[in-house]
Amino acid sequence: MKKVDVLIIGSSAAGFAAAITARRHYPGATLALIRQEEKTPVPCGIPYIFGTLGSPEKNLMPDPALAKNHVDLIVDRVTEIDRKAKTVTTAGRQTIGYEKLVLTTGSLPLIPPIPGVKLENVFPITKDVAHLTRLLEVLKGSRDVVIIGGGFIGLEMADECRKLGHLNVSVVEMLPHCLFAVFDEELCVRVEEELSKVGVQVMASRKAKALLGNGKVEYVELDDGNKLKADVVVLGIGVRPNAELAEKAGLKISHTGGIVVDRHMMTSDPNIFVAGDCAEKVSFFTGQSTRTWLASVATAEARIAGANLFEIRRANKGAVSVFSTKIGDLACGLAGIGEKGAQEAGIAYIVGEAESVDKHPGSLPGAKLTRMKLIFRKYSETLIGGQICGGNSVGEKVNLIAAMIQAEMNADQIATFQMGTHPLLTASPVAYQVVNAAEMALQKMHRN
Amino acid sequence: MKKVDVLIIGSSAAGFAAAITARRHYPGATLALIRQEEKTPVPCGIPYIFGTLGSPEKNLMPDPALAKNHVDLIVDRVTEIDRKAKTVTTAGRQTIGYEKLVLTTGSLPLIPPIPGVKLENVFPITKDVAHLTRLLEVLKGSRDVVIIGGGFIGLEMADECRKLGHLNVSVVEMLPHCLFAVFDEELCVRVEEELSKVGVQVMASRKAKALLGNGKVEYVELDDGNKLKADVVVLGIGVRPNAELAEKAGLKISHTGGIVVDRHMMTSDPNIFVAGDCAEKVSFFTGQSTRTWLASVATAEARIAGANLFEIRRANKGAVSVFSTKIGDLACGLAGIGEKGAQEAGIAYIVGEAESVDKHPGSLPGAKLTRMKLIFRKYSETLIGGQICGGNSVGEKVNLIAAMIQAEMNADQIATFQMGTHPLLTASPVAYQVVNAAEMALQKMHRN
Repeated sequence: MKKVDVLIIGSSAAGFAAAITARRHYPGATLALIRQEEKTPVPCGIPYIFGTLGSPEKNLMPDPALAKNHVDLIVDRVTEIDRKAKTVTTAGRQTIGYEKLVLTTGSLPLIPPIPGVKLENVFPITKDVAHLTRLLEVLKGSRDVVIIGGGFIGLEMADECRKLGHLNVSVVEMLPHCLFAVFDEELCVRVEEELSKVGVQVMASRKAKALLGNGKVEYVELDDGNKLKADVVVLGIGVRPNAELAEKAGLKISHTGGIVVDRHMMTSDPNIFVAGDCAEKVSFFTGQSTRTWLASVATAEARIAGANLFEIRRANKGAVSVFSTKIGDLACGLAGIGEKGAQEAGIAYIVGEAESVDKHPGSLPGAKLTRMKLIFRKYSETLIGGQICGGNSVGEKVNLIAAMIQAEMNADQIATFQMGTHPLLTASPVAYQVVNAAEMALQKMHRN
Repeated sequence: MKKVDVLIIGSSAAGFAAAITARRHYPGATLALIRQEEKTPVPCGIPYIFGTLGSPEKNLMPDPALAKNHVDLIVDRVTEIDRKAKTVTTAGRQTIGYEKLVLTTGSLPLIPPIPGVKLENVFPITKDVAHLTRLLEVLKGSRDVVIIGGGFIGLEMADECRKLGHLNVSVVEMLPHCLFAVFDEELCVRVEEELSKVGVQVMASRKAKALLGNGKVEYVELDDGNKLKADVVVLGIGVRPNAELAEKAGLKISHTGGIVVDRHMMTSDPNIFVAGDCAEKVSFFTGQSTRTWLASVATAEARIAGANLFEIRRANKGAVSVFSTKIGDLACGLAGIGEKGAQEAGIAYIVGEAESVDKHPGSLPGAKLTRMKLIFRKYSETLIGGQICGGNSVGEKVNLIAAMIQAEMNADQIATFQMGTHPLLTASPVAYQVVNAAEMALQKMHRN
């Protein structure tokens, strides 16, 4: 029987980060990673296969990084965990012993419970190269594509489909706006303006009632009675934790479907750690369960799990939620919570806003207007959220905000923040957005 | 006699930020800003006049922001401050009374004490529209330009001169490398490679001994005996605080030439505040005097000075130093101190390094390799410095590092940082540079 010190199940972002972290922290340990697929797509890169990369083969997790870190790669499917014997068994009839086990089994796409979802050319987004290759082929031969779900993955798929050039692209979203589960309304509206500019039709406040067709899908029937022509339907309505193996092994599962972990990413079995979408998450802000399935949270958890395997070295302060995306020419992002999130949690808050171009002077070619909104706790004045839209620098600006949130910086500290600025790379120091937004919030805090 | 609650002298980044901050913090106060120039250039934008913007008129401080904030703009030169009477007098024979005075008189270019600096077509970089217009005209009609000084302004001028297309551009630097006063050697070498790629000739470890010519400059004579042909010479060897007015008024001046201030940006006269290049600076890291003349430090100081005029509201923790620039296609930056700075201050430190592309997967078009080096205090493990080079996102990445430094985050907090990532905007979450560099430093810290 093969036996390793550390066995990692799963090969997406969390699996890789857990393996590399375990190697760094426990240089002498034997490590193996087992996954069911021959090749694993880069999860966040999946939409970009369709309009930009041109092939799922150009969007694969870099397996050489495993070999470089002396992590054995085993391609097989684990069917059972025997916690007493500390072994797993596989579909390929292997038994592998472990000292410590890390589950990074990820998530599965939600399938809406409506008639017709089994019709041909209806595609959920799965992390499966063959499935994604088929979707790409079908998209190439189609004219009308309907995407159900206006979240990040739905909109990124929509934007990439329109880049193919020959498709009519519609997005059906049941909430009043796309991305409304994450962003505040004004930012959702900006994104919808951009979608409209690039030719994507958004149908918000509407539900898909049924998928119609004879063998192949032909129409999406909406709850307002309209029928949308559809050669292909993409389902992007969200995911659920894939905790099946853990549940079968008797590990505690939360009401949200995630595997219960402590702050050290340890499960109810001290020899089993978990990271990523399959792990239960608590909010950095409220300490309550939260549904934040993001590669960045997954890798942060994996870096905690991987470091804690043989000695507890790190603790998880909870999921912050940091997103960014780009639709058309508009990059946008959020760190922490929005106004809606603050209201739902009952947090007293103050908003500060600022906008300026992302180069200086604004007459420089390519300068883009950047808008920023920051949200502070009203009484401690610590930063709890930020939303931005603008040019490509939004991708790292949202991380600047994320750092300020995680360091619990307050409005005065941010208003006197010393940043670097450069004409070609940032706003001017006088107009730097995060500083001015904090200053505007301070004016409201101390108005009297 | 005109009298205002707050009078600000100077109209560059610090003057603007002080005026706007004073307006926000003291809504009822009467504010005026006095400057000697009709128009003020955006300081950091000056090099970009020559190759990119095409005219100094496209690089002006946005005066409408003053009117919008109800700040009276007076164009005149202050010749004297009467601290007892609380008035200033001007070259235009005005007397203006103040309750609080803010000096943002900036800096003056250093002129090297060598023969020939008064020859025609030898240009220091001054914040003067007419002077910059003449330099632009002369550059257009020249063939050989020699830039003395390979610091930020010298290299940015060199890169812009070569964008004009018809110039042979050389940079003379007395240190072993360009930017060597700020960056560690390996980053200087990267920048020099880029300069060579775009056709700028760097002559390091050499001093200009004399400028030769008959009326107009014709040659730069180096200390190695070489003579460089020069139709025009640009002097970019640094600046000194412009503290003349303050000195005449009897305010305390430091040995570095800056006006002495306390942590509240108050001078030895409680009715006079100072911000920007004319103010004495202490290091965030050592508490010692430091020569950090940057618009970003200047505006942070101005936001402190402006808020403290009638009540002390904010304190200055010292200058962090955050720079970024772009030479050719390479953006690079530094926050805090480099290895050299740590060694000079005698700080025990640990370095962590990481590199990865700034999109993911790396097969995405336009992905650029980004290298990052972080420096931590060896014992407290807090971050004190970071250096990066790569694509345009370096501009905000250096600010992410700056925030982590100012929040005194330690290596473990950074290694478990939750960031947002997106294929088109950032590195992958597995390869995110700041997190991996911190993890590499941790491995060294806890090797045994």
